[in-house]
Amino acid sequence: MPELRQNIITREWVIIAKERAKRPHEFAHARDPLPQLPPYDPTCPFCVGNEAMTVGETYRIPQNGSWRVRVVSNKYPALSQEGERVRHIDGIYRSMTGVGFHEVVVEHRRHDLSTALYSVDDIVCVLNAFLYRYQELKKDPRIEAVIIFKNHGESAGTSLQHPHAQIAATPIVPNQIRHRLDEAIRYFDETGECVFCVTLRSELRDGCRIISSNDHFVAFIPYAALSPFHLWIFPVRHISSFDEINGEEIQSLAAILKTVLLKLYRGLNNPDYNFSIRSIPARDGHREYFHWYLTIIPRIARTAGFEIGSGMYINPALPEDSAEFLRGVPEGDPPL
Amino acid sequence: MPELRQNIITREWVIIAKERAKRPHEFAHARDPLPQLPPYDPTCPFCVGNEAMTVGETYRIPQNGSWRVRVVSNKYPALSQEGERVRHIDGIYRSMTGVGFHEVVVEHRRHDLSTALYSVDDIVCVLNAFLYRYQELKKDPRIEAVIIFKNHGESAGTSLQHPHAQIAATPIVPNQIRHRLDEAIRYFDETGECVFCVTLRSELRDGCRIISSNDHFVAFIPYAALSPFHLWIFPVRHISSFDEINGEEIQSLAAILKTVLLKLYRGLNNPDYNFSIRSIPARDGHREYFHWYLTIIPRIARTAGFEIGSGMYINPALPEDSAEFLRGVPEGDPPL
Repeated sequence: MPELRQNIITREWVIIAKERAKRPHEFAHARDPLPQLPPYDPTCPFCVGNEAMTVGETYRIPQNGSWRVRVVSNKYPALSQEGERVRHIDGIYRSMTGVGFHEVVVEHRRHDLSTALYSVDDIVCVLNAFLYRYQELKKDPRIEAVIIFKNHGESAGTSLQHPHAQIAATPIVPNQIRHRLDEAIRYFDETGECVFCVTLRSELRDGCRIISSNDHFVAFIPYAALSPFHLWIFPVRHISSFDEINGEEIQSLAAILKTVLLKLYRGLNNPDYNFSIRSIPARDGHREYFHWYLTIIPRIARTAGFEIGSGMYINPALPEDSAEFLRGVPEGDPPL
Repeated sequence: MPELRQNIITREWVIIAKERAKRPHEFAHARDPLPQLPPYDPTCPFCVGNEAMTVGETYRIPQNGSWRVRVVSNKYPALSQEGERVRHIDGIYRSMTGVGFHEVVVEHRRHDLSTALYSVDDIVCVLNAFLYRYQELKKDPRIEAVIIFKNHGESAGTSLQHPHAQIAATPIVPNQIRHRLDEAIRYFDETGECVFCVTLRSELRDGCRIISSNDHFVAFIPYAALSPFHLWIFPVRHISSFDEINGEEIQSLAAILKTVLLKLYRGLNNPDYNFSIRSIPARDGHREYFHWYLTIIPRIARTAGFEIGSGMYINPALPEDSAEFLRGVPEGDPPL
C-alpha cells in the first residue's frame, strides 16, 4: 500500500508510491552526452573579457587584475531597482509597484564548469558573494525578503550555460515563506522549540535519511520529500537567516555543498536541479522559531495535474533508499 | 516598471512582467504538426474493443450496445482502495496509510480527438461521469477530498494519448485546499460575503478579463494569473462543491468548456494544459464562504528557481491582453 507522509515543517502531504517506486539508479538522468562546452565563449556575457556585455556590477572578488566571482544586475530583471514601493487597493484588486532587485552571480570564470566540479574554495567565493549581497540588499527599506537560487540545466530553467546563480530581493513576503513562518510559530508555541532544530536532532538520531554531515551542516532527504532526491541542507547552529552565517560555517557549507552536488552529479548523471536558500523575512532578524536552510530539487519527476489539482505530490522514490544510494556514491571528483 | 498583483483568493503574489511581456499570439504553441493519430489504436487500453485491458469499471454511459464514456480504475493507482485509514505519529514523523481512489475517465470512443473538438453533448457525458463518481466516492467515510483533473499533452504529464481525465479521492485534505479555505473563511468573517462571489461580480462589472459567459458560468483570466492564459471558470450560483451542480448547469458548463478549450486550441495552437475542479472538502457540505470552480493552466511558461525559491510567479503575459485575445478567437470548430 502507498504511504502518505506529512512534512512537519511545511504541512505538505506526499504520497510515497512504494509499489511504483523505482530503484535509485533508475533516476539517473538518461540523456545523450552533453555537448562539450568550450572553456570560453566569445558570445557569452558572463565570460572573462566580455564584462561590457553586463550591466550594474555590484560585487567582485578580484583575481590577478581580473575577477573570480562577479555579481551583476540581471539584464532582464523581474523587479525594478528604481521607484517607490506603493501599494494600491481597489476593491478586490491589490497591486504594488514592482520594485526590488534581481541580480546574477557569475560563479566562475570557466564557461564549461558545473558547480559540482568546483573546488571547495571556488564555492566559498560564491557563498561570500551571496552573503555580501544579502547583507547589502537587506539594507534597502523597500525589501521584505531576499531569495538566493540557482537553476542548473535546461529543464530547471537556465537560459545561459555559463554557471551562475540569482538573487531576488522582493518588496513583499511571498506566501510560501509566510506559510512556513506560521507553521514554525505554531510549533514553537506548542513545544517551546524550533521545528527545524527538532527535525535535525531527529534525523541525526535516525540516520537513515542522512546523506552527509560535517561540523556545521547536515544534508538529508526529508522524511516527506516531495520528489525524488529532493534534499535539505540545515545549519546545525540555530540561526534564522543566511546572512548570520560566520566564516567557519561558510567553509563548512562549501564543503558539504561540494560533496552533495558531486554525489548527485556522479550518482544521477548530472541531473538538472534548482537550489534555493530559504531565510526568515529581511525585517525579522533572529527569531527562536525560524531556521534558515538550503533546499535542492533535482528535476527528475514531472509534476502534472495530480499535483496541480490536489496540491499533493506523488514521489516514486523512497527517501530512505535515495539517501542510502547517495551515501554510497564516492566523494572524489571524477576524472575530467 | 513591473507590477505585482496579489490574488485575493489565494493570497499569492505574481510579478506581471509588463516590459518583458510578449504579445498574446507569441504564446501560441510553436511545434511541428502533431503526428496524425488513428481513430482506433489496437494497443490502446482505452480504445473500443480493448475493454479487457482495463480493470475495475465503475461507470459507463452506454451507446448502441457499447459505451460512450467509461470510468475505470487507474492501472497504476497512486492510492489503494483497500484497507483502513490509519494515522501514525512518531515524534515528528507523521504518516498515514495511502488509502483512496484513483480513477480514469475515458472521455470518448475516438482515440484521436482532443476535448476541444468534442460536441457539447460529448462534454455533457464526461461531466455526468465526473458527477456520478464524485457523488459515489464521497460516500466512502475514508475520503476527505475528491479532485477531478486532466492532463492534456506530454508537457502536462499525459502518458496515454487517448483522451481521458482522472479522479483522485484522498484520505486527507491537501494543504492547498486548506489554505484556500482558511482565506475564504477569513474573508467571510470580515465582510459577510463569499470571496468568489465578490470576485465574480467585480470581474463581470470590469469586463476586461472576461473570456466568455453564459447563463450559469463565467470564464475569465484572474487579475493575478500566475502564468500566461491561466484561467478560471466560476459557476454563477453559489455552490461549494462540484457535486451540487444541476442538470441545466451541466449543459451550461459543457457549453462554456467547449468554447474556452476551442479558443485555446485555435488561438494558441492546441497547447498542452492541465485542468482541475476545486471543491470544498468532501465532509464539509454547503458553506457560505466557499465556491467551487474549474481552473485551466496551459503549459506555456516554465517555472524555474525563481518560483521554487520565492513562491512568487513571474507572468510574462498581461491578463487583460490575454483575455482580449481569447475573446477575439472565433468560436466555431476548425475544418477537420
